[in-house]
Amino acid sequence: MHANPDASAQQLKQIIERVERLDDEELGIKADRRDVLAEAKAVGFDVKTVRAIIALRKMNPEMRREAEDILETYKSALGID
Amino acid sequence: MHANPDASAQQLKQIIERVERLDDEELGIKADRRDVLAEAKAVGFDVKTVRAIIALRKMNPEMRREAEDILETYKSALGID
Repeated sequence: MHANPDASAQQLKQIIERVERLDDEELGIKADRRDVLAEAKAVGFDVKTVRAIIALRKMNPEMRREAEDILETYKSALGID
Repeated sequence: MHANPDASAQQLKQIIERVERLDDEELGIKADRRDVLAEAKAVGFDVKTVRAIIALRKMNPEMRREAEDILETYKSALGID
């Protein structure tokens, strides 16, 4: 902290305002993503499947195979065909 | 959807890549926020309290008073001094 309380308050305000700007940017990005997915839906794509594909693309092939194997094991254990 | 499957696949790919770019931007913003808060901590501010202040500043005075009243009521109900 600063020896000078005013300088410290000023520094705190700057930090808080930087975080708030980042929060605003994040809200903007979330709104943009909603818009892209709404557009996908409007042209006839299934949004739930688009999201699933995006999740699959974040995995490498090995992770993907492992995730699929575990899913199959659990489905089988629960008698889900 | 398109009558032409290749055009449809291309359009799907573009949509997915737009979402992925937004996801990457969001990760960047989250990293920036972590950096700002790490900097706040490094100069001696209490990060938990900084986060609490940011949450308070997102509320208008009426919402803030109401949230404080509810918190007081619950604390009182549970004997938290």
